[in-house]
Amino acid sequence: MNNMILASSSSVHGSGYLVYLHEALKELFSGSKQVLFIPYARPGGVSYDTYTSRVVKGLQFLNVEVRGLHQFSNPVKALEEAESVFVGGGNTFVLVDALHKQGLFPVLKSKIEAGMPYLGTSAGSNICGVTMQTTNDMPIVKPQSFETLQCLPFNINAHFIPTDSQSTHQGETRETRIKEYHVFHDTPVCGLQEGSWLRLKNKEIVLKGDLPAYVFEAKSPVSQWKPETVFQSNEGV
Amino acid sequence: MNNMILASSSSVHGSGYLVYLHEALKELFSGSKQVLFIPYARPGGVSYDTYTSRVVKGLQFLNVEVRGLHQFSNPVKALEEAESVFVGGGNTFVLVDALHKQGLFPVLKSKIEAGMPYLGTSAGSNICGVTMQTTNDMPIVKPQSFETLQCLPFNINAHFIPTDSQSTHQGETRETRIKEYHVFHDTPVCGLQEGSWLRLKNKEIVLKGDLPAYVFEAKSPVSQWKPETVFQSNEGV
Repeated sequence: MNNMILASSSSVHGSGYLVYLHEALKELFSGSKQVLFIPYARPGGVSYDTYTSRVVKGLQFLNVEVRGLHQFSNPVKALEEAESVFVGGGNTFVLVDALHKQGLFPVLKSKIEAGMPYLGTSAGSNICGVTMQTTNDMPIVKPQSFETLQCLPFNINAHFIPTDSQSTHQGETRETRIKEYHVFHDTPVCGLQEGSWLRLKNKEIVLKGDLPAYVFEAKSPVSQWKPETVFQSNEGV
Repeated sequence: MNNMILASSSSVHGSGYLVYLHEALKELFSGSKQVLFIPYARPGGVSYDTYTSRVVKGLQFLNVEVRGLHQFSNPVKALEEAESVFVGGGNTFVLVDALHKQGLFPVLKSKIEAGMPYLGTSAGSNICGVTMQTTNDMPIVKPQSFETLQCLPFNINAHFIPTDSQSTHQGETRETRIKEYHVFHDTPVCGLQEGSWLRLKNKEIVLKGDLPAYVFEAKSPVSQWKPETVFQSNEGV
């Protein structure tokens, strides 16, 4: 019963906050009068209030009321009663730490499975994978667990960049990092480029946007996932 | 009594493994007949044997015997008896996890404090900071603690790249990530560019190589640390 949009990033170069997603969000939130915003990822360390204000403005094109989860004295109850949810980007460790500490993962998961509209951008998309272990973020806090919502049969790597053969930088490429992950784990990883998003409806996962995604599976060569097509594992799982 | 070289990377563009460090390593290891190599960071997921072979070749210009720590049945004892140590780069989470599991941090720290020559590259340099919380690596395993050797009064960010104002990528810059770290912690962070290394001798830390390092301190503007000068905190600590 999933009804989700999981975006690689909240904006694309040269365009405002969430603007490239406007049409998709009109559809996702068409039945919603309220959107509950979870500001816990704190991009750039901004306060919950500042982040929520940015989202209120960013969703002004919709006819919805936006409130931050931090404004409620009982976050579990607020989430249980939410019509729809947006989890914004920032630092995935900070986000996962806060969600675990407040016991919000099981509540969020059960709401999503019941069909509540969910929008995630960047860190808010990462947490829909099996674990957060393919984030690009710095481990600035230590969550009690790396496990996340498991709404997807794979992990996400947001802001994915294909390997640049012209680069002179000696740090690991994104592809190398994901291959290192597969030395320890079998969970597939979806490298989602900026401007791309996943549309989950019922049991289908469709790639949206103009660019292909890259699907990494343990012991298999990387494959491209084409826009407007449904996710399929290399192994046909 | 520290006697260390902590390099941002093991190579620079267009040059072979460790080549840019040859002169510095001749001095560091001048009194050593043996170098104990710790291959636990497994760059690209390579095996301990493969990684150690690479290092044997990379240190052939020195008159030293190189052995991998994994070749010893008692790693604690092997480390206690080591003449000098090289901790290679790879994934910092994987490295820190293995060192914690084998109880090697206290042994390594006491050897370093007793003046044993130590070479670190990338992840092997990161672990000399206060914590590993400013690594760029993916959290592909979960170490029991993020605390590291604390041979430095700051954390390292290896492979540091100054912000590129021309970039169209929407992912966080390195500077943004480090500033997010400072929302939660006061430990200074040294952004060490490729081709740069720190020379610790006695109580002094000197920046080596041609490029400046970037010093980030909580609640202070970023400052540049010039090559051939001694580390000084912005706060004069």
